[in-house]
Amino acid sequence: MATAGKVIKCKAAVAWEAGKPLSIEEVEVAPPQAMEVRVKILYTALCHTDVYFWEAKGQTPVFPRILGHEAGGIVESVGEGVTELVPGDHVLPVFTGECKECAHCKSEESNLCDLLRINVDRGVMIGDGQSRFTINGKPIFHFVGTSTFSEYTVIHVGCLAKINPEAPLDKVCVLSCGISTGLGATLNVAKPKKGSTVAIFGLGAVGLAAMEGAKMAGASRIIGVDLNPAKYEQAKKFGCTDFVNPKDHTKPVQEVLVEMTNGGVDSAVECTGNINAMISAFECVHDGWGVAVLVGVPHKEAVFKTHPMNFLNERTLKGTFFGNYKPRTDLPEVVEMYMRKELELEKFITHSVPFSQINTAFDLMLKGEGLRCVMRMDE
Amino acid sequence: MATAGKVIKCKAAVAWEAGKPLSIEEVEVAPPQAMEVRVKILYTALCHTDVYFWEAKGQTPVFPRILGHEAGGIVESVGEGVTELVPGDHVLPVFTGECKECAHCKSEESNLCDLLRINVDRGVMIGDGQSRFTINGKPIFHFVGTSTFSEYTVIHVGCLAKINPEAPLDKVCVLSCGISTGLGATLNVAKPKKGSTVAIFGLGAVGLAAMEGAKMAGASRIIGVDLNPAKYEQAKKFGCTDFVNPKDHTKPVQEVLVEMTNGGVDSAVECTGNINAMISAFECVHDGWGVAVLVGVPHKEAVFKTHPMNFLNERTLKGTFFGNYKPRTDLPEVVEMYMRKELELEKFITHSVPFSQINTAFDLMLKGEGLRCVMRMDE
Repeated sequence: MATAGKVIKCKAAVAWEAGKPLSIEEVEVAPPQAMEVRVKILYTALCHTDVYFWEAKGQTPVFPRILGHEAGGIVESVGEGVTELVPGDHVLPVFTGECKECAHCKSEESNLCDLLRINVDRGVMIGDGQSRFTINGKPIFHFVGTSTFSEYTVIHVGCLAKINPEAPLDKVCVLSCGISTGLGATLNVAKPKKGSTVAIFGLGAVGLAAMEGAKMAGASRIIGVDLNPAKYEQAKKFGCTDFVNPKDHTKPVQEVLVEMTNGGVDSAVECTGNINAMISAFECVHDGWGVAVLVGVPHKEAVFKTHPMNFLNERTLKGTFFGNYKPRTDLPEVVEMYMRKELELEKFITHSVPFSQINTAFDLMLKGEGLRCVMRMDE
Repeated sequence: MATAGKVIKCKAAVAWEAGKPLSIEEVEVAPPQAMEVRVKILYTALCHTDVYFWEAKGQTPVFPRILGHEAGGIVESVGEGVTELVPGDHVLPVFTGECKECAHCKSEESNLCDLLRINVDRGVMIGDGQSRFTINGKPIFHFVGTSTFSEYTVIHVGCLAKINPEAPLDKVCVLSCGISTGLGATLNVAKPKKGSTVAIFGLGAVGLAAMEGAKMAGASRIIGVDLNPAKYEQAKKFGCTDFVNPKDHTKPVQEVLVEMTNGGVDSAVECTGNINAMISAFECVHDGWGVAVLVGVPHKEAVFKTHPMNFLNERTLKGTFFGNYKPRTDLPEVVEMYMRKELELEKFITHSVPFSQINTAFDLMLKGEGLRCVMRMDE
């Protein structure tokens, strides 16, 4: 392309400081260096993690910064050493990468790449420790290696999944993070059997994606657990057959679930990050075969506590990161699941706004309205 | 047989009260009732669990009682409804059963039979709530449904594994409990891959059986962890390649293991029941794929505590009971592993005494000498 090797000037939403509305600015995006790819973002969605690091409560503040990590785009140009991608390829950026060379990438089970594992504090490229974004020559920090709140961004090749160019990017962009996280937690880790009973703790986008996974796996009873009773109605679209609000009971919710299911659920997926919900999710699974999967990110000082007999009675507890999907290897197939209509994504996309109205997307999420708001970069 | 349907008078070792030497007495053994089998015991071994309930510290004392649960014998007669066994069959009694009809027995994963799950407080038969043992008409209590410290005993058919009659009962009798527990924890639950690194916590008979399983699975590095340095020499026979004594280090043993193995072991099996060892066994496994398996029975008030990020970084924690073996379905195949020389049992049997010297077996175990002492009932 004519822009290859040159600085591109384009629009980006810059977070100048914690908690202040983003401002759309003209930024300079440097050409990709070795093992990097410059991507034209077409659609980007907003995820809680963006809001969390924008609020920057109790964390190292990294500002000014270009947030954003759920997106779909097209390769504009590639840096030295990039052989897997060429300009025009359709890609999903991912906040965690796959170098394909470390012990984790070589393991069949792990997606915790040693080189490109998520790093929320680093605001620069891993290759040279520099940012590719500037405003009038002054660097603007990156976010989790993706920074998709920009018309163009530079991403390590290991953090880009090359997908079917037929796939509509305005839909599959949500597979970049939350939806794959929840879906994979169920399909890859909990692996519920056909006809089994599954409990899902937390009915936000990730929890509903976990629920969608349970439905796809053929679970016959899917119990949603949430403190907000309004979540039940929406959850029904994702296969929810029963709803439990812990606030409606005096006894611990795990006891309620064990009673409802004659001994416990076959599997449970925890998507809140609340430590008590984690313990409940583990203690509500059936002895002999129950599996609980932790997805939600806990508080730094949280402690998981349970009686060890709960394990000895043949229960399993696992955790997962990004649904155990290896970004480059596995994500293209998740896109194919959508293309084959096995996975419905439309129901996760409750809002859509022009990129210029990005602060509306933040407002919606802060109010807890909807699941995903997709922003159209060309508007 | 001529004895079928009649009371048999024979010798048994009776525990009259907690912690007092057993006394060999003549007991009357009633004929088996519905779903029960009377078994002539040929060999019985002593397990820690016998000693634990003989000491009866902090438990409901159930005396006078006939202890014993690791054994091999021959069916003498069967009660009404028993179709799977006939007189002359070779059997291993098991302290937990398999009814083949409950949800657990029907599940592929569980061996926690609803009907015949271990019950340490019940001293009578499940069918009629009566004991089959008497001395001058006065009932003597059973122990975990087996009471193998008797020349004849009555056992529920669901607690008897019918095995290859060619198998030497003086060897395979140790598969009734501890050896299968450790072996199955590794082979059925931890499932280490060929060439992987495994840590075994606690190098008693169960831990060494877990180690034997790791060796059989092809683990290339097997790290034994024990507070007693004398255990290393013996453990080498079971495949131990490295030994760590937590007392030799100021930092927690999980940190020592993580450093030794460049990030953690692939799997760990905990066979002590000590809560700190359980936590160490979990925290020493590698992120991304590590699996820890709890085998040792914890104190009633123990609390398992860890940071939930240890799970989210893709570690798995499981517990097992009797190595996840279903007694009737799976134990015959474990015997075949011995017959095919894939599993060596001789090295577990460090002592052998006539039944009349049963208190010597107790003394050896109390002193921590040897692994298994097999008693010969005909002497």
